[in-house]
Amino acid sequence: MATSPWRELLQQAMQSHKHLKHSTHLQLATVRPDGRPANRTLIFRGFVEGSDKLQFTTDSRTHKIEDIKHSPFGEICYHFTNSWEQFRIHGTLDLIGHADYESARKSLREKAWFDSSPRARAAFAAPHPGHPKGSEPSEGNLQVDPNQGPLDTFCVLTLDPEEIDYYHAKDAVRILFKSSTTEIGHKVWSQQELNP
Amino acid sequence: MATSPWRELLQQAMQSHKHLKHSTHLQLATVRPDGRPANRTLIFRGFVEGSDKLQFTTDSRTHKIEDIKHSPFGEICYHFTNSWEQFRIHGTLDLIGHADYESARKSLREKAWFDSSPRARAAFAAPHPGHPKGSEPSEGNLQVDPNQGPLDTFCVLTLDPEEIDYYHAKDAVRILFKSSTTEIGHKVWSQQELNP
Repeated sequence: MATSPWRELLQQAMQSHKHLKHSTHLQLATVRPDGRPANRTLIFRGFVEGSDKLQFTTDSRTHKIEDIKHSPFGEICYHFTNSWEQFRIHGTLDLIGHADYESARKSLREKAWFDSSPRARAAFAAPHPGHPKGSEPSEGNLQVDPNQGPLDTFCVLTLDPEEIDYYHAKDAVRILFKSSTTEIGHKVWSQQELNP
Repeated sequence: MATSPWRELLQQAMQSHKHLKHSTHLQLATVRPDGRPANRTLIFRGFVEGSDKLQFTTDSRTHKIEDIKHSPFGEICYHFTNSWEQFRIHGTLDLIGHADYESARKSLREKAWFDSSPRARAAFAAPHPGHPKGSEPSEGNLQVDPNQGPLDTFCVLTLDPEEIDYYHAKDAVRILFKSSTTEIGHKVWSQQELNP
């Protein structure tokens, strides 16, 4: 697969910020069931192999699950703090949870689980995120058997990008990348330079 | 006015990050007229005097204006990169533009204009942001007379917070702050510790 034109810009930005621990942190906006926006930081886990989909992990007990069931659209704001580059990545979200038995999706979720650190895995065994503290019995130091497969609360979240609004504040460059689908079903990208 | 309990946490986080140029950068999510989310980086310009409202500046020609006219709700994700603290600030957005003649709002907008740098002011005279580059005549080096009042494109944007979801990842602390209004119209805050 040819690399999408915006991916090269994103990879350059990631490369130039990789010495910063926060360089994989980005913000994902969704729409709540009541029609209001929600926004939170996620850690970018790379692209799903052989695709342009951005990959994340999340807990099935968080509010974003309800948001996505109600409206599958998301917009990422990926802001690079040193170069003042911003990627606004708009697309469709897809959740892969424990009841997903389709072979490729099941494998993707298992791989993501075993790629996670022991500490990250333990969080999925913690008391219900967002519930009042102390309302559930505490387990003390949470540990997950390193050979155990994904806990039920563990989900993979992907975003399939449709449009990327790239802005480099220092260079005053703004480029809009848009995807479309050809007659034979291939995704192709067009790009246009915009006023910043 | 007593300081709202979450403001102390926010001010501490800002103080401990003030050596970083990006410490005033945050992400604002809105909902587009088509019901999909939007997300972008803004610069926090401080609180509106005598209130809890967060203040920003923006250009009347950007898409967020349409979003806000359609749905006035916004959620800020203010992520502090060194301490891994996150403030999700949910509330109502309000735009103050050139046709706003109410005295206090007019003064607020004028003050925000004169508090802006010459470079920031010049951006409001630039070609239409988001239009194809070269589609409008370029003005060369844009300059705005330093004594001139706000250009028509200059807007103040405020967010009146209703709920703040504070999360300190390193300390595994999460606190939800909620506002309510008393019988005599005072805004009061309650807080509850949540599972992270």
